[in-house]
Amino acid sequence: MKVRLGMIGGGQGAFIGGVHRMAAALDGLYELVAGAFSSDAEKSKATGVLLGLAPERVYNSYIELIEQEKQRPAHERVQVISIVTPNHLHFEPAKLALENGFHVILDKPMTFSLAEAKQLQQVAASSGGLFCLTHTYTGYPMVKEAKQLVAAGTLGTIRKVYVEYPQGWLSSFEEGTDNKQAAWRTDPARSGVAGAMGDIGTHAFNLLEYVSGLQVIKLCADINIVVPGRQLDDDGAVLLKLSNGASAVLMASQIAAGEENNVRIRVYGEKGGLEWQQADANTLLVKWLNKPTEIRRTGAGYVSSFAQHNTRTPAGHPEGYLEAFANLYRNFALTLQARLTGQTAPAEAADYPSIEEGVRGMAFIESVIASGKSEQKWTDFTN
Amino acid sequence: MKVRLGMIGGGQGAFIGGVHRMAAALDGLYELVAGAFSSDAEKSKATGVLLGLAPERVYNSYIELIEQEKQRPAHERVQVISIVTPNHLHFEPAKLALENGFHVILDKPMTFSLAEAKQLQQVAASSGGLFCLTHTYTGYPMVKEAKQLVAAGTLGTIRKVYVEYPQGWLSSFEEGTDNKQAAWRTDPARSGVAGAMGDIGTHAFNLLEYVSGLQVIKLCADINIVVPGRQLDDDGAVLLKLSNGASAVLMASQIAAGEENNVRIRVYGEKGGLEWQQADANTLLVKWLNKPTEIRRTGAGYVSSFAQHNTRTPAGHPEGYLEAFANLYRNFALTLQARLTGQTAPAEAADYPSIEEGVRGMAFIESVIASGKSEQKWTDFTN
Amino acid sequence: MKVRLGMIGGGQGAFIGGVHRMAAALDGLYELVAGAFSSDAEKSKATGVLLGLAPERVYNSYIELIEQEKQRPAHERVQVISIVTPNHLHFEPAKLALENGFHVILDKPMTFSLAEAKQLQQVAASSGGLFCLTHTYTGYPMVKEAKQLVAAGTLGTIRKVYVEYPQGWLSSFEEGTDNKQAAWRTDPARSGVAGAMGDIGTHAFNLLEYVSGLQVIKLCADINIVVPGRQLDDDGAVLLKLSNGASAVLMASQIAAGEENNVRIRVYGEKGGLEWQQADANTLLVKWLNKPTEIRRTGAGYVSSFAQHNTRTPAGHPEGYLEAFANLYRNFALTLQARLTGQTAPAEAADYPSIEEGVRGMAFIESVIASGKSEQKWTDFTN
Amino acid sequence: MKVRLGMIGGGQGAFIGGVHRMAAALDGLYELVAGAFSSDAEKSKATGVLLGLAPERVYNSYIELIEQEKQRPAHERVQVISIVTPNHLHFEPAKLALENGFHVILDKPMTFSLAEAKQLQQVAASSGGLFCLTHTYTGYPMVKEAKQLVAAGTLGTIRKVYVEYPQGWLSSFEEGTDNKQAAWRTDPARSGVAGAMGDIGTHAFNLLEYVSGLQVIKLCADINIVVPGRQLDDDGAVLLKLSNGASAVLMASQIAAGEENNVRIRVYGEKGGLEWQQADANTLLVKWLNKPTEIRRTGAGYVSSFAQHNTRTPAGHPEGYLEAFANLYRNFALTLQARLTGQTAPAEAADYPSIEEGVRGMAFIESVIASGKSEQKWTDFTN
Repeated sequence: MKVRLGMIGGGQGAFIGGVHRMAAALDGLYELVAGAFSSDAEKSKATGVLLGLAPERVYNSYIELIEQEKQRPAHERVQVISIVTPNHLHFEPAKLALENGFHVILDKPMTFSLAEAKQLQQVAASSGGLFCLTHTYTGYPMVKEAKQLVAAGTLGTIRKVYVEYPQGWLSSFEEGTDNKQAAWRTDPARSGVAGAMGDIGTHAFNLLEYVSGLQVIKLCADINIVVPGRQLDDDGAVLLKLSNGASAVLMASQIAAGEENNVRIRVYGEKGGLEWQQADANTLLVKWLNKPTEIRRTGAGYVSSFAQHNTRTPAGHPEGYLEAFANLYRNFALTLQARLTGQTAPAEAADYPSIEEGVRGMAFIESVIASGKSEQKWTDFTN
Repeated sequence: MKVRLGMIGGGQGAFIGGVHRMAAALDGLYELVAGAFSSDAEKSKATGVLLGLAPERVYNSYIELIEQEKQRPAHERVQVISIVTPNHLHFEPAKLALENGFHVILDKPMTFSLAEAKQLQQVAASSGGLFCLTHTYTGYPMVKEAKQLVAAGTLGTIRKVYVEYPQGWLSSFEEGTDNKQAAWRTDPARSGVAGAMGDIGTHAFNLLEYVSGLQVIKLCADINIVVPGRQLDDDGAVLLKLSNGASAVLMASQIAAGEENNVRIRVYGEKGGLEWQQADANTLLVKWLNKPTEIRRTGAGYVSSFAQHNTRTPAGHPEGYLEAFANLYRNFALTLQARLTGQTAPAEAADYPSIEEGVRGMAFIESVIASGKSEQKWTDFTN
Repeated sequence: MKVRLGMIGGGQGAFIGGVHRMAAALDGLYELVAGAFSSDAEKSKATGVLLGLAPERVYNSYIELIEQEKQRPAHERVQVISIVTPNHLHFEPAKLALENGFHVILDKPMTFSLAEAKQLQQVAASSGGLFCLTHTYTGYPMVKEAKQLVAAGTLGTIRKVYVEYPQGWLSSFEEGTDNKQAAWRTDPARSGVAGAMGDIGTHAFNLLEYVSGLQVIKLCADINIVVPGRQLDDDGAVLLKLSNGASAVLMASQIAAGEENNVRIRVYGEKGGLEWQQADANTLLVKWLNKPTEIRRTGAGYVSSFAQHNTRTPAGHPEGYLEAFANLYRNFALTLQARLTGQTAPAEAADYPSIEEGVRGMAFIESVIASGKSEQKWTDFTN
Repeated sequence: MKVRLGMIGGGQGAFIGGVHRMAAALDGLYELVAGAFSSDAEKSKATGVLLGLAPERVYNSYIELIEQEKQRPAHERVQVISIVTPNHLHFEPAKLALENGFHVILDKPMTFSLAEAKQLQQVAASSGGLFCLTHTYTGYPMVKEAKQLVAAGTLGTIRKVYVEYPQGWLSSFEEGTDNKQAAWRTDPARSGVAGAMGDIGTHAFNLLEYVSGLQVIKLCADINIVVPGRQLDDDGAVLLKLSNGASAVLMASQIAAGEENNVRIRVYGEKGGLEWQQADANTLLVKWLNKPTEIRRTGAGYVSSFAQHNTRTPAGHPEGYLEAFANLYRNFALTLQARLTGQTAPAEAADYPSIEEGVRGMAFIESVIASGKSEQKWTDFTN
């Protein structure tokens, strides 16, 4: 049985809404049956028509969606609600959905503020609903492989992590044009206290904690607004201290002119290191002190069960961003289906970012912005 | 309205059937409503259940599927039939589907023999049905870009083409194990006169003719059976002459131990050259006599409308094999929808491999095997 | 006429001495005629024999070398002295050499302390001798090209620089073995106040200032001793502010297990960015906001006169580390020969690191170590 | 004691003469003491001055050089003569040098014809002189590593080899300009029966036989003159059969527009494969059926003694074309010095291309051109 999916946000012209729909569709595990795609009723309706939804299940607001779906018979009712609105519109719909018994998939960063994030964490806990936060990059098979290698102690104690996310698309004052993506992502009223650090810095942060299995405990940030007239940070670099005493560097920029989205992580332990980057997403380099570097590849027979579970095609047939995104959706569906049938999802399926990662991400945003304003070197990471 | 899709073949355990289903699902343009997934009725049924099909539309044979779907009302009836069986089971179902008014998507190589291919070409012509042959690699955005650059004369007259498809998965006698993929692909009764040349050589051949815009007119082949006991070629290299007088080299091997599926093409003209490979599928290198090599990228603003049309995500978020495959399905659906609404599909949507490519591919198989057996240097390419 | 060269340090078993000799030999511009290769007279003598020197010009100490060479007739006397000893043995011989009318080539970092560096700067100024500091990486043709592109304003105002030098060779307590390189480089008495920051951080720093044409004005450093028992830093990361208001990140590590010596720099301006790394030393990537990335290559016809001047072979025949090192020697010789013949060396030949870079490097070492110990975020860069 | 070197050819403006001199200089094992740099006496003299030679040892012809040097006292006399003239001027000076007791280093291809090559082989044998043919690419450390891995059986029985040498520099009618390199290389009177196949095809051929340890026994060639007006082949591709029954493909082109000199080899055996290319010369990829690909690197501790012997700098400091070339010179000097002191050179030093490789290369040229003209598929390789 396919999981019945409803969507909040993602009207025509939105970028990430389409990505969520492709991710949900790829493996045939979801059926999109309802949506409140826009606060503009006409636009919501038009999107519903395009997507072939029944007209009565295209709503004008998230409240309407939640209230009316709740009244539908159990076998027909939406089970999971995907929320793909800008940041300031994450908390209320997510809270309402959870409170009304729906499971939730939410785009990152989780909320507008850390306070909201903690509140949502409580709501999620008491509701018992499942929750997924779409930190895409941890859905890549070779990122899974990296985490497993570290967790197995293959590299020894971790000593150093470099993580970076360079982009160039905000090198000019894009928010002064009709670029809607730029408009809300650079607007404090819709994006929150952070720009680049919220939009892509949180991805880098999540990748760092996910792969290393360590937590950031303090940090020192250089946060910059480079493009004149911009209201939020578009560049930053952060020195970090991790829970085992290791140190790290995190770099995120939206003014790295000519860069696409080459999120990259390098982790070094006592015995070796590893390197992954989105530009070569199906490769994981594993480096050793006294042996040749290994090229581990998506789809190969020797990789961990976690990497294999998140792979669809044989080695050499590249899996990309949508497949990584779809892995989040797939794992969430498998976990939900297991629960509904009274089973336990295998560890590989249960491995998707959830509410804790969301709270950590919001704590990162607030800590990093605070550090950026501080004259003190180290700022404690608090959440 | 989604296109109603039926599938022949692709029962559980098959590789390519699942790929076709993901490709059809990705863009939300198809609804899989019927299938004859296996000649084993139980297996077909079980696959239908897994895929959530209505039980009455899961059939025990392709004949049943075609006959019964034909009798359904027009608004409900399957419109397109995907055939994903081994080579010896391509011709009959494709012919019957076309003759009964269905549009057809068929896996490559098109048929078991060139004679069948030509017959199917006639059937397709008289039926008026649309036809798509799934030569995946021409679905990549940067392969589209390559073709457009050549067609626009950017490189000047084409002088040389290198195309290759190295694999290592048949380095051992896999057909002696329980590897079903290996079993039928190395079996003359199911695969046809060629092994590697049919399975991957045709992809390389198609890529060569697609990107260069030229046709092979004669060839000289070294065809080998390397692994003891194997019945069909698992390795070969071919010298080729093209319709404009240029020459080319085609290499395909299934015993290139350690290689995955790095299909690659290099084209050289008077003014410059280009290079594309699946291992870095979102990059097209364009090389010049007196200027720096350019790295053209999927999703960039400067690429041709054909590349843009076949792209879903911003530059740097890699699109992979399934997206390339999905481009064939998407373009086929867009072309069909245009026809059904009395419109003309844009050139970008009409750009998918069809029956002519299928006939050329079968002619390649027969010519290359004939050349492999000949003591003469050059064998004419005939179709 | 070949330049007559003397060498201080570089006895058998030393690493960098051999590199200097190969660099001096490559272009046939120098003749090694004298040396004080070791404080161990037997070892110095043996090295002299191996190198085919006249026995009377193999000395037991740098003082002897300088004093005795000074007394030789002008047409025979050493002209340039290369000093390739550990850091604590840089200042005295360099000072004495300059004071006695010799030109000096000195390995980096320039001295043991900033105070020494400034003193040496005065000696050099009053002596009128030529001085070269062997910051190898700025000798690469594509690093020259990078500098020229930035200087020409091709990228617009510079906004961000990333520079890094990851190594893994000190991941274990190598100084506890018989590794002589490790022994002195981790010893405060011979290396100075910094370990990794002095040994490789200064290279990264020099590369940053050279390519960007900007100066560091303040910095914030996280300096670590990772391997237990070690006395000097083996890892660090630095946030930096540059003279035009741009920011930068510098990372240097000797515990990045599995890394070789992949020094790398990325520079971003308003219009584009560039990337160079030693692992692909003959390539300079130039990235643009709205055009394909360019691959600029050593030996190509389109590169700047500075890149061409520092190149020996046609494009595609890789030039490596020794060629980069040799470029320093060659440019120094050309500048000296021009002076001796009353000419002005072309700008391309005069482009080698000198005493000012040495002072900046020592200021970097002292500032970065001070910052590492400070609780304040920003430490002024002073020299 | 340095080896005393004389040079024939290599006057100012010549490309390869300078390369030989840098290669000889790099390791300090040779002293250039004599030369006949040009048939133009003034030019020869001027070159001698530039190189700082004693005027009386700069000769006007190779005959003069050989005759007069022979009369010098043994401790002063030239020991090795490097011949760096165009192909038609290889045989006579080499023969005369060997006959007069000099050791010879000769640029490739060895002679103008196979007949000359065989005659030279006899002269060399009876003279007892040492002989080195400068097939540069086999001097790379990672090519040595590749050969050793194959020889040790690491890949199992070899089944397939791909070797290629694509260049683009003759894409236009360069011989119609004042390009001297193009002029003689495309001139049958100076180059011989082959153009591209002689100039770069022989390198590819030598690399194939060197790394695989196998011999070509028959071949089938497609040889083309692409640029209008050209007299010799500028492009070709060859199917080959090897002595153990394996097959191979060799591609060489000078009209691959935009390509530099990316000579590349891939070898596949039963258990794995390997790949090396000049563009990433310090990397050897070793691929396996069921394990991650290994990246073997110049300078690493785990490589064979042959790779280590041919390396000067630590891993990560790239060694390039001149270092590979210098390895030939160094090994030749070490072998000569061993002989002169009554010792046996170690196998690592004795590993340089010699007269047998030269005869094989000339046989390749004549066989491949014969095959190009034949209507028969296979032409026996004869030498």
